[in-house]
Amino acid sequence: MSYVKKLKCLLCGIEYKPKEIKYTCPQCGDEGILEIIYDYAEIKKIFTKEKLKMKSEYSMWRYLPLLPVDNPAKIGPSKVGWTPLYEVIRIREDLGMSNIWIKDDGRNPTASLKDRPSAIAIVKARELGEKMVTCASTGNAASSLAGAAASVGLKSYIFVPQTAPSAKIAQLLVFGSTVFAVRGTYDEAFDLSIEATREFGWYNRNTAFNPYMVEGKKTVALEIIEQMDFKVPDYLFVPVGDGCIISGVAKAYKDIFSLGFIDRLPKLVAVQAEGCKPIVEAVNGDGEVKFVEPNTIADSIAVGIPRNRVMAVRDIKKSMGFGIAVSDKEILEAIKYLGTKQGIFAEPAGSTAFAGMVKALKEGKISKGDKIVVLVTGNGLKDVESAKKAGGEALIIDPNLEAVKETMN
Amino acid sequence: MSYVKKLKCLLCGIEYKPKEIKYTCPQCGDEGILEIIYDYAEIKKIFTKEKLKMKSEYSMWRYLPLLPVDNPAKIGPSKVGWTPLYEVIRIREDLGMSNIWIKDDGRNPTASLKDRPSAIAIVKARELGEKMVTCASTGNAASSLAGAAASVGLKSYIFVPQTAPSAKIAQLLVFGSTVFAVRGTYDEAFDLSIEATREFGWYNRNTAFNPYMVEGKKTVALEIIEQMDFKVPDYLFVPVGDGCIISGVAKAYKDIFSLGFIDRLPKLVAVQAEGCKPIVEAVNGDGEVKFVEPNTIADSIAVGIPRNRVMAVRDIKKSMGFGIAVSDKEILEAIKYLGTKQGIFAEPAGSTAFAGMVKALKEGKISKGDKIVVLVTGNGLKDVESAKKAGGEALIIDPNLEAVKETMN
Repeated sequence: MSYVKKLKCLLCGIEYKPKEIKYTCPQCGDEGILEIIYDYAEIKKIFTKEKLKMKSEYSMWRYLPLLPVDNPAKIGPSKVGWTPLYEVIRIREDLGMSNIWIKDDGRNPTASLKDRPSAIAIVKARELGEKMVTCASTGNAASSLAGAAASVGLKSYIFVPQTAPSAKIAQLLVFGSTVFAVRGTYDEAFDLSIEATREFGWYNRNTAFNPYMVEGKKTVALEIIEQMDFKVPDYLFVPVGDGCIISGVAKAYKDIFSLGFIDRLPKLVAVQAEGCKPIVEAVNGDGEVKFVEPNTIADSIAVGIPRNRVMAVRDIKKSMGFGIAVSDKEILEAIKYLGTKQGIFAEPAGSTAFAGMVKALKEGKISKGDKIVVLVTGNGLKDVESAKKAGGEALIIDPNLEAVKETMN
Repeated sequence: MSYVKKLKCLLCGIEYKPKEIKYTCPQCGDEGILEIIYDYAEIKKIFTKEKLKMKSEYSMWRYLPLLPVDNPAKIGPSKVGWTPLYEVIRIREDLGMSNIWIKDDGRNPTASLKDRPSAIAIVKARELGEKMVTCASTGNAASSLAGAAASVGLKSYIFVPQTAPSAKIAQLLVFGSTVFAVRGTYDEAFDLSIEATREFGWYNRNTAFNPYMVEGKKTVALEIIEQMDFKVPDYLFVPVGDGCIISGVAKAYKDIFSLGFIDRLPKLVAVQAEGCKPIVEAVNGDGEVKFVEPNTIADSIAVGIPRNRVMAVRDIKKSMGFGIAVSDKEILEAIKYLGTKQGIFAEPAGSTAFAGMVKALKEGKISKGDKIVVLVTGNGLKDVESAKKAGGEALIIDPNLEAVKETMN
């Protein structure tokens, strides 16, 4: 059994026992997202820094006592997590910032951070004996769920906006999913997947609906904490769509703080695209999220109705962080910069946090000496069209040395 | 300093000291590929199974004493290697084979096995003080070299056939390479890159020209050996283009055998596409490699003039292995099978070895009880067009439940 004590509604505060409830708070409806409360006193007895150091399991399951897993036998085979946290020496030199790290979470099985929550979804589905899983997604949650489902023999039904990058849809199909490419936005695909869940009884992995997804996402930050040897950064830059990853990061630090391994928390910075920045506006304003029509190249965070808005805004404000928006041009420039300077290949949403960090530095919101971690959430191979826009053109030549020389002039 | 004792010409057998020589044997010309000879007696003194077990470095550098690295400070920052070796339970059940493993080497930084040799190339270039690197490639060696070069600030000049998948070219450009997309085959790009190396003095990473690339490639098998706890498989299935990876695999087992950690060697099986199978024909015939015009969807192994042919044929024959060719249809089926059954997403060349294993089983060349390892060399995101051919089609629907129900009928 896991160390989950209860599930608590974000809105009304009612607490439920884990077995009592599957998705959201019955009192508050779909807005009533549930938070997972752990029994830290019990966890402390078996989870120590020293024991952690001895573990040879280099994956997200390294942090099993902090995860909502009742039956570890239901964990799938794919190796998720323990992605590199790079010291990015060349970027440090170039920007004159001596304390910046980049976590490359595009190194997961289906090439995005979303493999973490999907791995949890698969465990929960199997614990419940479910055979069919579903989700709505801009693409990455979908491909991660599809891959994880395939690896354990569950059938997956996936809803994506028809405009999702073709690489992400190709992944889904190779993983054997039934793919509904919806003529509409991600927000419409989301609502439709909830309806379909109720109609067909599929197990639903949607962000900010399934209460366990934040718990999967937090493992990226649990790793950052350990990889930084329990030193806490001043700022952590996170790309934000639904707002679930940034709440996962907050949860990780809260967990580790509650266990007494760290004595302060980082400021969380939400980065969004200019063309879709409801969370940024809310965080920098009165906290109210106003829905928008998304318009950005960063498809993974093109979310006009952020489902985890209440929790995300709360977590960012509580951390004393802020929001910052960047243009699509800045996002593409960040792709090229990360690639050229450090050999890290990010998709647009994956480079967004870095673009935000650069902008925050320019605007004086952070200082060169600050200790900073930037999260890259997905690999650039997931969106080759955008990469082409960022990268420029090849020189097409005939196969002879003269042709090479001509390009040099 | 490394434990490299000498470099020995594959053709004439002349031995050189490491400092004496950069690429191929001056006596034999470009055909005179050099093999790296280690001082196993010295390595034995510091490299033991027990010491290996204690190492916390989970990357290809775990095997540093067996690598041609004189100055470890020149190792780049990207985390290369220690990719998962999966027990593939669902595939075992489906095929009735209880002893099959799959090594997913698409989990490397630029999503292919080629990150391993490129990491070595970067070390050697930096040890020599070189600032510019080059290679010819069907795509993966190129993107891996470009990424590794970017991460340490070397300039890269890359030659690829114009027909390389756009994802691979996009990677190169994002990494800041100067990309020469050659109107011609890989084989023409290869020759041109050697000419350009001589003309411009760039450091050349070409397979079967730069003598150290086999040493990088062997790390995939060093990991397999350790991940299988030093149990040796009966057969190891490897996709073959130039024939450098399969010689790398042979070298790894030779190294570990020479150190006395294992007492036998696996049979190596070369898998190629029907439309480009010069090595398969040679291995199954008289050993002579006849050049062909490549015609296959598996771009990474579409090599009509296999540069490492002499070494590869020798290694496969010596291992008592064999060659097998599969159709493009079988390659695409293997992509879908690996994705659907196990959540592993392979590019065409990446799934080729698995397709070969399935065919070898059907033809009675191997048995269900044999202990088998199959190598997946690159991620499917590198070639989305082929993935689409393998995966099938999404269901395009309006955003309402009726539309979902209609697809169910």
